[in-house]
Amino acid sequence: MSREQEQKVFLDNLLEHGFFIPMGEPGLFGRTSKFENIIKGLEALIVSATGEEEVTYFPPVMPRKILEKSGFMDSMPHLAGLVHCFCGNERELPALKEKMANKEDWGQMLSMTDLSHAPAACYPLYPTLSGTLPAGGRLVHLGTTCFRHEPSPDPTRMQSFRMRELVRVDSADNVLDWRESWFERAIDFLQKLGLKPERVEASDPFFGRGGRVMANNQREQKLKFELVVRVYENGPLLAVMSLNYHQDHFGTQFEIKTADGETAHSGCMGFGLERIVLALIQRHGYDVSAWPSEVTALLGLS
Amino acid sequence: MSREQEQKVFLDNLLEHGFFIPMGEPGLFGRTSKFENIIKGLEALIVSATGEEEVTYFPPVMPRKILEKSGFMDSMPHLAGLVHCFCGNERELPALKEKMANKEDWGQMLSMTDLSHAPAACYPLYPTLSGTLPAGGRLVHLGTTCFRHEPSPDPTRMQSFRMRELVRVDSADNVLDWRESWFERAIDFLQKLGLKPERVEASDPFFGRGGRVMANNQREQKLKFELVVRVYENGPLLAVMSLNYHQDHFGTQFEIKTADGETAHSGCMGFGLERIVLALIQRHGYDVSAWPSEVTALLGLS
Repeated sequence: MSREQEQKVFLDNLLEHGFFIPMGEPGLFGRTSKFENIIKGLEALIVSATGEEEVTYFPPVMPRKILEKSGFMDSMPHLAGLVHCFCGNERELPALKEKMANKEDWGQMLSMTDLSHAPAACYPLYPTLSGTLPAGGRLVHLGTTCFRHEPSPDPTRMQSFRMRELVRVDSADNVLDWRESWFERAIDFLQKLGLKPERVEASDPFFGRGGRVMANNQREQKLKFELVVRVYENGPLLAVMSLNYHQDHFGTQFEIKTADGETAHSGCMGFGLERIVLALIQRHGYDVSAWPSEVTALLGLS
Repeated sequence: MSREQEQKVFLDNLLEHGFFIPMGEPGLFGRTSKFENIIKGLEALIVSATGEEEVTYFPPVMPRKILEKSGFMDSMPHLAGLVHCFCGNERELPALKEKMANKEDWGQMLSMTDLSHAPAACYPLYPTLSGTLPAGGRLVHLGTTCFRHEPSPDPTRMQSFRMRELVRVDSADNVLDWRESWFERAIDFLQKLGLKPERVEASDPFFGRGGRVMANNQREQKLKFELVVRVYENGPLLAVMSLNYHQDHFGTQFEIKTADGETAHSGCMGFGLERIVLALIQRHGYDVSAWPSEVTALLGLS
């Protein structure tokens, strides 16, 4: 089977076996309790595996200025989602309705608001850390519904998806030590669920030709690792977790200082919730009651 | 205290007592585990009170065509959020970055995507019901993060908020009977949590002068009831639940038929999750451990 056929078969099965409800747009799915109960089990398992019980939840939208300040629009502008609204008055509404009725583009009659979507769980966090960190820095557990504009027929590549992230902010050494402490533990976390992850050097999906240079730098400096699993025989490997080191990028942009007064460095570990669950379904089958009992026990499903 | 002062005091207390984390935009808040644990308890209580264990979760974004088809842009265009993206190529990016650097409006360099925000939990549902319903119609329990563009300093009026909805779709009589069966039960649901709700005739926040006519019709025909509670001495009462009858509006737009072949009518009961929790905090205080034991028991917090 070709990659495209495998993706279609997987999606058809997810619909047929009652995990997803089609919404008529690529990368958007309604989710049933059958799917969400696995997500909830996974969220609880992340809490127990990390020991980080306190979770900060940001809404799916955030101040647009975070997108601007963070440099996201320079490096991955094609993935950003901005919130536009109709800010006109009653005299302007008929023209908008006419364009809509004629199936013309009415988007240009809207105005950009002060809000954008969160492209990753950690973006809304950084402005809240501006200033001086406590001694020992911070470790924050985040849960956010993220958005990336990348419509795809592959059910593992959603436009709206949930991430859990652990974000470590402190000196370079402490951030790198923390990240390294998770290399084996993260593999172990996924292996206990019956997955066969591999850790690979990776790069972000930077935009355009300039982006290729950025991606090469990122790989050379080993800033990004992904834990990948095989879900398609002929498809690309699926990244279900990532372990990132941002150097002082966010510390500089958002003026975050360590207790010593140095610009803070940051790193994060991201869990792609839907992707981990999809990898579990692909690995253990569509009948959750027939999954290995160790796995359902870990997920609180048995 | 003026209404504005009361709102500010409430918000300051929510921040100080560790329920919310400020995000620098009105109506957007990070939420702590302390707040979210109450939300989770409330979600479980809604399941047990309604007996509707199967929940359909839609993502915060939905196909834009639902917004167009449903008539939302005719009646409440000012509240809609559309998703715009940068769809340009590398030659166009420098101009966007320049506008951004100069603090000019770069929103007009973006394009409208096929996605919008969900303004209420039930919008993504209707296209999935197109066709003929089973005998007896459908009752669906939905959970969705909604968006409405109405920046406000009042913490009870968020731009991004979560709704649970029960949606009943069938003949007019069956939908109205179902709604009526909830009039007392909904009051009871809130009273058990220690709230003092009142049921009032209400209308949607329709746009402009034409909207006033629509609002009057809605009230006259008793299409919308809200359960309101007092959270501010001088503020407006807060709607925490609503009981709506849509007549055949969605049935017509989305071609939904009853088993008899008639155009289906629909109605819904909405629970404003954040609003109910905020009303509970306002009623029982900022120290959740000191809430009445009947209430914490119902919410699984004790």
